Parts: sequence; C-alpha cells; structure tokens
Amino acid sequence: MSTTASIASTPEPPYTAVIFTSLRTPGDQGYARMSARMEQLARRQPGFLGIDSAREGAGITVSYWSDDDAAAAWKQVHEHVVAQRRGRDVWYADYVVRVATVTRAYGPDGAR
Amino acid sequence: MSTTASIASTPEPPYTAVIFTSLRTPGDQGYARMSARMEQLARRQPGFLGIDSAREGAGITVSYWSDDDAAAAWKQVHEHVVAQRRGRDVWYADYVVRVATVTRAYGPDGAR
Repeated sequence: MSTTASIASTPEPPYTAVIFTSLRTPGDQGYARMSARMEQLARRQPGFLGIDSAREGAGITVSYWSDDDAAAAWKQVHEHVVAQRRGRDVWYADYVVRVATVTRAYGPDGAR
Repeated sequence: MSTTASIASTPEPPYTAVIFTSLRTPGDQGYARMSARMEQLARRQPGFLGIDSAREGAGITVSYWSDDDAAAAWKQVHEHVVAQRRGRDVWYADYVVRVATVTRAYGPDGAR
C-alpha cells in the first residue's frame, strides 16, 4: 500500500474495520505494484470508507467499510482473490486479518 | 512504540481492538522515550492481549484487549493520561482513536 500522510476520514460509527497485519518475505517480487493496484481497486468498491497503511518491520493496513457485507464483498473481488492467493504463496511470511466493528471514534477535539 | 518484527498473537474473538492512527509533529521532543514506556506499561495492564505498531508517514498502533472495559481502564491509567495530554499538546499534529470489537480473525491457515 502507498504511504498515507493523512488519516482516513470516516463517518460516525458503527462501521467495519479490516485490520491486516503482515510480515513480508524478502524482495519485492511484484509486491509494490500489486499493493498500489489493490488500494486503487479497493477505493472503487461499494461501501469503501477509507484506508490507512504503514510498514515498519510488520505492516499494518486498516481498511474501513460501511458494514461487514461490504468488507466481505471486497474479499471476493476476482483480482483481489488472485492477489490474496499470491500473498499466501509469495509475498507474506505470515499475516492475520481481523474483522472488527468500530463502535467509537474520537480525535483530539472529540468525536470523529 | 517499538517496531514489532512479529504479529500480535490473540485469543479467539471476540475481543477489543483500539486502533490509534496518528500524524507526528516534527522532532522527537521526548516522544520515543514516552512511546517505549507506554508500550511497556500497557503490557502490564489487566486484559492486555497484544500490540502491533508501525509508522511510515502516518503511524498506526493497534492494541488488543480482553474487552472494552479493559481498554477503557488503560485509557485512565495516570501515567497514560499524562502522556495523552502531552500527545495532544506536543507530539501529534492529528490523531484518531477507534475502539472496535473484533468478531473474526484468520491467517493463511485459517482461524487465528
């Protein structure tokens, strides 16, 4: 995923967060290109709300969705399914996907 | 937070995730030291399950807790309250805290 120099702006909860934590294998092997493409594709899906991503040793990408169904539909998009398979086989030494319901959100000035 | 070269190991859902996304102000100003100390302190709190952190432009720290009450109790720990205040005043240009309930978790080999 590309680095964000901003924080995803999301509507009032509840909404769904997909927390993807990963450890990469050595070398790029097409990862950077796929990662940029997947973010581009995710942004076009119904129910997409936002995405934040950072890698520093472990990588953490959190994508936000209107509900669990929207997140589940993105998981099934063909090009994404192919990337997930290649992720398991080539790009990731390990990963965990956590699907969560955001119930509260706040920033320095209160509710966000 | 210190860089993790591993992924937090968590029990079977449900549990609580606190997703903290932030943009730093320039310079350290005591940030690295506070950050290491807060992670050390969090690990000792009742209900603490794990933590993953990465910064690359934006910073993302996800801490996992047995339930919302455990996460809320950590928010109120005195030394953490002081750090939160200094975070608002000095370290962070912006941040969002999202409290979420993890309902499903899986890795390359199934449920995690």
